[in-house]
Amino acid sequence: MKTIDTMVDSILDSYENYGGINFTEAENFPNKETVISVLKDIQNLIFPGFSTAETLDRTNLKYSTGERVHRIVSTLTTETKKALLYICKTKQQNQTNCFGLAEKTVLSLIEHIPEIRRLAKLDAEAALENDPAASSIEEVILSYPGLEAIIVYRIAHFLQKNGVPIIPRIMTEYIHGKTGIDINPGATIGESFFIDHGTGVVIGETCIIGNNVKIYQGVTLGALSVAKELQNKKRHPTIEDNVTIYPGATILGGNTVIGENSIVGGNVWIIKSIPPNSKVKYKLADSAD
Amino acid sequence: MKTIDTMVDSILDSYENYGGINFTEAENFPNKETVISVLKDIQNLIFPGFSTAETLDRTNLKYSTGERVHRIVSTLTTETKKALLYICKTKQQNQTNCFGLAEKTVLSLIEHIPEIRRLAKLDAEAALENDPAASSIEEVILSYPGLEAIIVYRIAHFLQKNGVPIIPRIMTEYIHGKTGIDINPGATIGESFFIDHGTGVVIGETCIIGNNVKIYQGVTLGALSVAKELQNKKRHPTIEDNVTIYPGATILGGNTVIGENSIVGGNVWIIKSIPPNSKVKYKLADSAD
Amino acid sequence: MKTIDTMVDSILDSYENYGGINFTEAENFPNKETVISVLKDIQNLIFPGFSTAETLDRTNLKYSTGERVHRIVSTLTTETKKALLYICKTKQQNQTNCFGLAEKTVLSLIEHIPEIRRLAKLDAEAALENDPAASSIEEVILSYPGLEAIIVYRIAHFLQKNGVPIIPRIMTEYIHGKTGIDINPGATIGESFFIDHGTGVVIGETCIIGNNVKIYQGVTLGALSVAKELQNKKRHPTIEDNVTIYPGATILGGNTVIGENSIVGGNVWIIKSIPPNSKVKYKLADSAD
Amino acid sequence: MKTIDTMVDSILDSYENYGGINFTEAENFPNKETVISVLKDIQNLIFPGFSTAETLDRTNLKYSTGERVHRIVSTLTTETKKALLYICKTKQQNQTNCFGLAEKTVLSLIEHIPEIRRLAKLDAEAALENDPAASSIEEVILSYPGLEAIIVYRIAHFLQKNGVPIIPRIMTEYIHGKTGIDINPGATIGESFFIDHGTGVVIGETCIIGNNVKIYQGVTLGALSVAKELQNKKRHPTIEDNVTIYPGATILGGNTVIGENSIVGGNVWIIKSIPPNSKVKYKLADSAD
Amino acid sequence: MKTIDTMVDSILDSYENYGGINFTEAENFPNKETVISVLKDIQNLIFPGFSTAETLDRTNLKYSTGERVHRIVSTLTTETKKALLYICKTKQQNQTNCFGLAEKTVLSLIEHIPEIRRLAKLDAEAALENDPAASSIEEVILSYPGLEAIIVYRIAHFLQKNGVPIIPRIMTEYIHGKTGIDINPGATIGESFFIDHGTGVVIGETCIIGNNVKIYQGVTLGALSVAKELQNKKRHPTIEDNVTIYPGATILGGNTVIGENSIVGGNVWIIKSIPPNSKVKYKLADSAD
Amino acid sequence: MKTIDTMVDSILDSYENYGGINFTEAENFPNKETVISVLKDIQNLIFPGFSTAETLDRTNLKYSTGERVHRIVSTLTTETKKALLYICKTKQQNQTNCFGLAEKTVLSLIEHIPEIRRLAKLDAEAALENDPAASSIEEVILSYPGLEAIIVYRIAHFLQKNGVPIIPRIMTEYIHGKTGIDINPGATIGESFFIDHGTGVVIGETCIIGNNVKIYQGVTLGALSVAKELQNKKRHPTIEDNVTIYPGATILGGNTVIGENSIVGGNVWIIKSIPPNSKVKYKLADSAD
Repeated sequence: MKTIDTMVDSILDSYENYGGINFTEAENFPNKETVISVLKDIQNLIFPGFSTAETLDRTNLKYSTGERVHRIVSTLTTETKKALLYICKTKQQNQTNCFGLAEKTVLSLIEHIPEIRRLAKLDAEAALENDPAASSIEEVILSYPGLEAIIVYRIAHFLQKNGVPIIPRIMTEYIHGKTGIDINPGATIGESFFIDHGTGVVIGETCIIGNNVKIYQGVTLGALSVAKELQNKKRHPTIEDNVTIYPGATILGGNTVIGENSIVGGNVWIIKSIPPNSKVKYKLADSAD
Repeated sequence: MKTIDTMVDSILDSYENYGGINFTEAENFPNKETVISVLKDIQNLIFPGFSTAETLDRTNLKYSTGERVHRIVSTLTTETKKALLYICKTKQQNQTNCFGLAEKTVLSLIEHIPEIRRLAKLDAEAALENDPAASSIEEVILSYPGLEAIIVYRIAHFLQKNGVPIIPRIMTEYIHGKTGIDINPGATIGESFFIDHGTGVVIGETCIIGNNVKIYQGVTLGALSVAKELQNKKRHPTIEDNVTIYPGATILGGNTVIGENSIVGGNVWIIKSIPPNSKVKYKLADSAD
Repeated sequence: MKTIDTMVDSILDSYENYGGINFTEAENFPNKETVISVLKDIQNLIFPGFSTAETLDRTNLKYSTGERVHRIVSTLTTETKKALLYICKTKQQNQTNCFGLAEKTVLSLIEHIPEIRRLAKLDAEAALENDPAASSIEEVILSYPGLEAIIVYRIAHFLQKNGVPIIPRIMTEYIHGKTGIDINPGATIGESFFIDHGTGVVIGETCIIGNNVKIYQGVTLGALSVAKELQNKKRHPTIEDNVTIYPGATILGGNTVIGENSIVGGNVWIIKSIPPNSKVKYKLADSAD
Repeated sequence: MKTIDTMVDSILDSYENYGGINFTEAENFPNKETVISVLKDIQNLIFPGFSTAETLDRTNLKYSTGERVHRIVSTLTTETKKALLYICKTKQQNQTNCFGLAEKTVLSLIEHIPEIRRLAKLDAEAALENDPAASSIEEVILSYPGLEAIIVYRIAHFLQKNGVPIIPRIMTEYIHGKTGIDINPGATIGESFFIDHGTGVVIGETCIIGNNVKIYQGVTLGALSVAKELQNKKRHPTIEDNVTIYPGATILGGNTVIGENSIVGGNVWIIKSIPPNSKVKYKLADSAD
Repeated sequence: MKTIDTMVDSILDSYENYGGINFTEAENFPNKETVISVLKDIQNLIFPGFSTAETLDRTNLKYSTGERVHRIVSTLTTETKKALLYICKTKQQNQTNCFGLAEKTVLSLIEHIPEIRRLAKLDAEAALENDPAASSIEEVILSYPGLEAIIVYRIAHFLQKNGVPIIPRIMTEYIHGKTGIDINPGATIGESFFIDHGTGVVIGETCIIGNNVKIYQGVTLGALSVAKELQNKKRHPTIEDNVTIYPGATILGGNTVIGENSIVGGNVWIIKSIPPNSKVKYKLADSAD
Repeated sequence: MKTIDTMVDSILDSYENYGGINFTEAENFPNKETVISVLKDIQNLIFPGFSTAETLDRTNLKYSTGERVHRIVSTLTTETKKALLYICKTKQQNQTNCFGLAEKTVLSLIEHIPEIRRLAKLDAEAALENDPAASSIEEVILSYPGLEAIIVYRIAHFLQKNGVPIIPRIMTEYIHGKTGIDINPGATIGESFFIDHGTGVVIGETCIIGNNVKIYQGVTLGALSVAKELQNKKRHPTIEDNVTIYPGATILGGNTVIGENSIVGGNVWIIKSIPPNSKVKYKLADSAD
């Protein structure tokens, strides 16, 4: 067997040969740990005091909020610059403009926080109204993974829409790992969105979802084909206002539209549009005999 | 663009306008971090030495166990008081009684630990007997997410049954996030329960599950309707003793009973009762052509 | 109610009566925390700088890599000895040989790291080629849970193939919890493997998967029966080269072979072999009316 | 030899028999760790950014200062209440008044911080003027133990003068341990005070020191007698304005006054008053032959 | 200039050439960090709750004390074995006996803790009686460096007397650094010992000090000569019962005895014996003119 | 009383009015915490494994040493740049040159480490030879504060000699605080230097000390006058080879030379030169009556 020193050298060679190493000195990419840490800080800015044991009272709220905002701005701007560096080089853009974009975008996100809080409140109220098991807004904030996934999506979506690459995806994959709910940050989602249980939910990059939509565990809003040339094309469905989609339903295709006020039954498989006010039920007859 | 100070002020305004902030000085709710931390301590009390690198030997076991019990009692009583405060106020009950309930319930949980350990041992043995891949009880304790989810359910169920709100749900959502297994703490589950793989399993609040039941990944035991007025009604199925439910099966409705010794095939969709000793198979004929 | 001291004594009694305690002084099993910690170190050895905020530059790469390798060797050898102790006792083997195996196997793993990196690069390239949403190898490394699950499988599989019990399973269950992707470390998987979204994927112990296979969320490659006597028998399917399996498909049975270049549609249920170049579609006709 | 359990019991008996244990549930005294931690916070409030690696910029200074002030108020009030409890009980005072005093005193200290900073600046300037080795105010702040000891004295003296027991002494003993300079918090010290090197300096409880005084290492300003009945009597000397005292000098007695503008030579021993403008030299003649 | 790699190699060479490196694999010496950490644990065992913010109440005292004792036994035995290894090798003793001595000595120390607590209480009472500034036993425990130095001496002396090398000296040098009081662990010191202020106090290895002795800052009880051949000879003075020694006094020589009830004035220099009941005063006359 | 917000504003005003704040964005000075942390790293590079519980074996020594060296270079260069910034501005030097000096000096220090280790070994041997209480080099390394102070001096002196301001003084004041030994980094000290006990030792900036010098606690090598205009003049004594200076001796003045092989008795006060081979004794006659 080789000596450890020889093995170390082989590993070093494999860094040269196969890449896959994130050097600080070269084009340094963001790292997961830092991005997730700043995401948690933003989550705590949105619903302070529910996740961690911090002491919040009215006399120090201004200071602790200000500190948190500064910490978020500082850390997220640094990571955003790294994420943009790749684009700047690829598109041969001016780096100064590119870096200016990082600062501007992070500040816009902070400015957008009250709006995200308004949406988060509507999302939480939708859960309270639609789940018989929920008994207060606070219980929803404390224990509904669907709400947590939606809020992280709303943060990541804002960054993605404003031109930040990679970081939004790290954020949604973090919450995908934690909740089993996989919402692509590129999706467009309206107000008062409710996801129950959530494990296995997939919402694709070009989905458009209206207001007051409810979906359950295992629902896929996906693409009919995943050919690489479809990049940047609409390849995921549109869900109009007030639609409910029960567990395990699969709805595929960029031209598929579920009309408003429709109810989609559990486990169905849909690849063409459904008119408004429809009820799509699973055919049960011969499957349960 | 606004200055950071102005943005901080807007965020502070949004705390006033939309709530969603957990002040220490007012009705302070439990926080996730503390509840999850005490839950992990209880898990380590149930199977000591398997999760963390602590040193356990017979001469110090008494002291380390005693320390752990005191730490659990102290922390969980504090969080339980916060959880009960909300109920006390809503129901205009006497706060002293309400707080006395916190202490009493936490001590009952400690007294109940040997019984939870007896049940946990039966659950672990069920995994060992039913999974060809398992080769020892210790392997099951170390690597079966189903066992971990069941034990957390048993802890949370005890608290819920004894009147503690919110905390049981934070506990089961924590383990839902970690395992993809979503067992509502209100469900009633018998001895020797086995869940394999587990991702996507949903077991609703009013489910009743007998002894020696086995279920696989993606099984939903859910409600036919989620209308808010069904709160506190039985809306999830009953699974009798010795039933096996294969992956992806969906069983819905509060009156649906799966009779004892039945086998429910993968991916089936069941909304009415099944007599004892049935075998419900998925209809394969025309789906694979 | 009993005093706390009495309750502590009851818990101590239950350790005597029901076992389930991992004493340091007796046959001490590995613990999850340490195994997961060393696994993360190995993941960082494979793709350095992407997960954590460490400073990596060319002048110190040799030293930081050497330090990491030594730390991995030291910790993993200790845990592997614990895992092997159980086997040594059961099979009445010589402990010295058994412990020598621990050291030898861990060093072999280190020697195998460049090969795992070669495979990881191919897996990452497969994701980049097959997902329209992916725009660089670095983005795949940073945000694709499927890639992370596959790499952990490749590490765990190497250890399992070389006779290490329990630890490979702790590793794959850790990443199962994090990604919802459950790959048994015993499975055999070829090059350029791609899993998209991934939540709910189950790949059984005796699966054989060829090169260039793509699978989506909710796919089960499972056993038709889980009778204990099937232990060590091939009870999971074979997937040949260039097969694509869409979301929610279930493929069961040790004799079931999906022929090369086949496409398996979403949500299908397959329990017999499919010839090469097949397209198995879900029957949609009457379910979507 | 006894068993460990028996030894533990003997130690528990000795807690009963000899006391010396600080129970949380009874009259709980402050603890050193917490008092020293809050003292360091106050030191950082006085000269921010010199001791620790914190990030201070003008845009977040308001928030970080506000957070620090709130943290100091909260922690120091808690510890001060514990310190006052002892007095309240001994003097049979009303506890509410006593606790109100804690809050009021801590807030007074915060209000007094700008004045302490004004004095600290004068003390630092005195060091810069009097030590040939010093080249900037910042160097003095960063590396002169005398300045650190004087500032801690000024904080502790304020608390002691306002009736807080024990805590001031814990503070000055902490800095005594760190610098070898032992200033009793009861001493009265004027502006622009300079201590060089400092090891072995002792300044007693009832000392009165004027403005622009300079003292060197090993100087004792002590009592002639330490009889217990002298408690609360002036038993340490008075040093008037502009006096310099060289290394190792010992000045004792409550009636001893060193008149203004005097210079006291190294190693002298003084127990009676010295008129203004004196030069007291060590008699060298026959000691160095 | 050399490259960093070359510099690292030079440093590695200097480890070969000059030694001074503490290899884990060879004769591994104790390290300061671990010894000081276990010393702090012992200090907290002696006066629980005064140094750190731990929660101590009567119901968990047994468990927390038991845990602490086990932790001390385990860590201190490991370090003591390292310290004894050197002696075992030098004296060619049987290593098993030598290691047995480690365990036996550490258990004896634990057995001796109640006696150290009895002595510590007397030492604390001596401070309370003799210092006009002290107002309670708790204040003395919390803020008198002399008491802390004496207790550490009593712990270290017990270990040294029982044959443990190096560790006692690491302990007393730790407290020397913290208090400026340097008591050699070999010294013999009676009951009710009081050191005030303490900075600069030196008490040599073969000193013998009776009961009720009081000494002040800067007192040296030293050797007349430090010739290497005096190793293991009595070369430091004897101080009989009830003696008081004022600041800066120097008493030297192994045959020098300060008779009981004597008072030694500040800054005196004594190299021959003094009869009981003497008062040795500093000659002030011509030094203060 | 003012509100907390008003008090915070007053403190902010005092930052404006009195300075004394170390802004990150402006001329940022080094901070103590970071400088002390890197100093400890250098101390561990000099005597590895004695201070902390790290695992050192021959196979990983190269890697751990290399990592440590890189960490030291990186951190110390950053702090040195801050220290030099002040000088660059004051002297209106080119900042690039100034920063190049930082990197060059830190690398020179690393190159100088083997020489510092050679000197440290001689210093340790001097302690072993001269103290009857010492029994091995390792015991000296582990427990002699004099050796630790000398090594820190040698590190700081190298930096000071190479033009680095402030940082050397922070280093020597750290060890002054820990040992009571105050050696100015500007002093020039030969080989095989021994300080015993050490508390209260002061060695001034322009001292010159030869080889094989021994000094004891409380020795001052100081200036006769501290007038500011003496800055950069030799104002502290010269001690030639093989001189021994006993406790409490004070030697003052830039022209004072203690000739080689001389012995200076305890507590003497010297302000003029002493020829070689002298014995200066304290006059005891009339002080001890």
